[in-house]
Amino acid sequence: MTGKLYGLGLGPGDPELITLKAHRIIRSVPVIAYPAPDTGESFARRIAAPYLIPEQIEVPILVPMRVERFPAQEIYTKAADEIGAHLDAGRDVAVLCEGDPFFYGSFMYLFERLAHHYPTEVVPGVSSIMASASALGRPLAARNDVLSVLPGPLSDDRIKAGIDAAGAVAIIKLGRHFARIRALIDTMGLTTHAAYAERVSLAEQRVMPLADVAEDAAPYFSMILIYKGGEAWHPALATSNGPTS
Amino acid sequence: MTGKLYGLGLGPGDPELITLKAHRIIRSVPVIAYPAPDTGESFARRIAAPYLIPEQIEVPILVPMRVERFPAQEIYTKAADEIGAHLDAGRDVAVLCEGDPFFYGSFMYLFERLAHHYPTEVVPGVSSIMASASALGRPLAARNDVLSVLPGPLSDDRIKAGIDAAGAVAIIKLGRHFARIRALIDTMGLTTHAAYAERVSLAEQRVMPLADVAEDAAPYFSMILIYKGGEAWHPALATSNGPTS
Repeated sequence: MTGKLYGLGLGPGDPELITLKAHRIIRSVPVIAYPAPDTGESFARRIAAPYLIPEQIEVPILVPMRVERFPAQEIYTKAADEIGAHLDAGRDVAVLCEGDPFFYGSFMYLFERLAHHYPTEVVPGVSSIMASASALGRPLAARNDVLSVLPGPLSDDRIKAGIDAAGAVAIIKLGRHFARIRALIDTMGLTTHAAYAERVSLAEQRVMPLADVAEDAAPYFSMILIYKGGEAWHPALATSNGPTS
Repeated sequence: MTGKLYGLGLGPGDPELITLKAHRIIRSVPVIAYPAPDTGESFARRIAAPYLIPEQIEVPILVPMRVERFPAQEIYTKAADEIGAHLDAGRDVAVLCEGDPFFYGSFMYLFERLAHHYPTEVVPGVSSIMASASALGRPLAARNDVLSVLPGPLSDDRIKAGIDAAGAVAIIKLGRHFARIRALIDTMGLTTHAAYAERVSLAEQRVMPLADVAEDAAPYFSMILIYKGGEAWHPALATSNGPTS
């Protein structure tokens, strides 16, 4: 009997935003694996930390953190080998994933290497696009809106086309593209409909109208939401939507 | 002291896919409210049913269920009045929401009426688009894909434009538009990249390649996912991603 592979969505950051199912599985598996930067803390592990068990075997997947580049596939081949050895030995393995495993997540690289060979279950999680809308106190999308999710590294032309075609927009992976994208939104006359959200659901959460952001760059865990369908954003509505209190 | 209003995302249907936070709040509030069809069971209440407390006051919001039309706003004005009376009396009220409250959810109609007047917190939930990708065993979106979410009632031209502009697509609110949209996807040569998911995470879950769907219509809780970026869908990978077992 081989072990079972789980891909666990852990949500946007607040440990209370994991699902009951992910919580049960974290508490039951002998092995956990998670992406970890070459220096510093693993964000996925941080979300799960309150629920981890001292006896659990931990498999950190060391991934150099560069917003602009996708990691080398050898990293995932090596990690899949290591995880596969635990599964072959009959040990269930839960891969901890920020947000949702299949929404721009690196879990897909392990899934495509392992799911053909081992029983595999993916547990969806709360995505940061939904968590950002909640934190901002306004709809992500409604009625018959088209919603476009646009990665920041795309060209101005592609981002403009995505915004033009949609009633609601989430622009993710901002990083050093933030200033360029903000200027583009301004050119399109949509700044009053745009809001910024950073590290939502954590104590460090920052949410504000896009026009109020002082910086010219943004961290990895941030996004811009545009909602054309309604009135402009009401900051007052967001103030009560803070991190877990 | 007035009560606090909560909008609780309950996820796609499996009661184990609610968050720890939504679970805690459901167990703590004296009043719950939820949308309910004029005949039959409230899906939101069904998801929360294992956690409800007999003493809780229940406020069903009776909404005629027609996929094609948005409900009359008087329904929400009346419901907001009823919920507001509980809040005025100092009782916290949790509004139960399928999926995520701000992702095409009717909670926004209550939010816009009440959030200016009462302390309000929105708790995001697992969305059906992420849960469908998990159930199908393939990514919703990856790398620098554009993801388009397209409501089925839109015209062929708008749906085609949305598909053309994106690497990954979720088409929601299918209903009687299903046959038309399937024909459109076929014309675009994308059928082998398209999959169908219905009532994901429930015992009644059905997931399959789009080409295998026998019916010419689809229920409200269904969607089509298209993923251009990778190889076509592997049914084998989905078989182990069933409802909670």
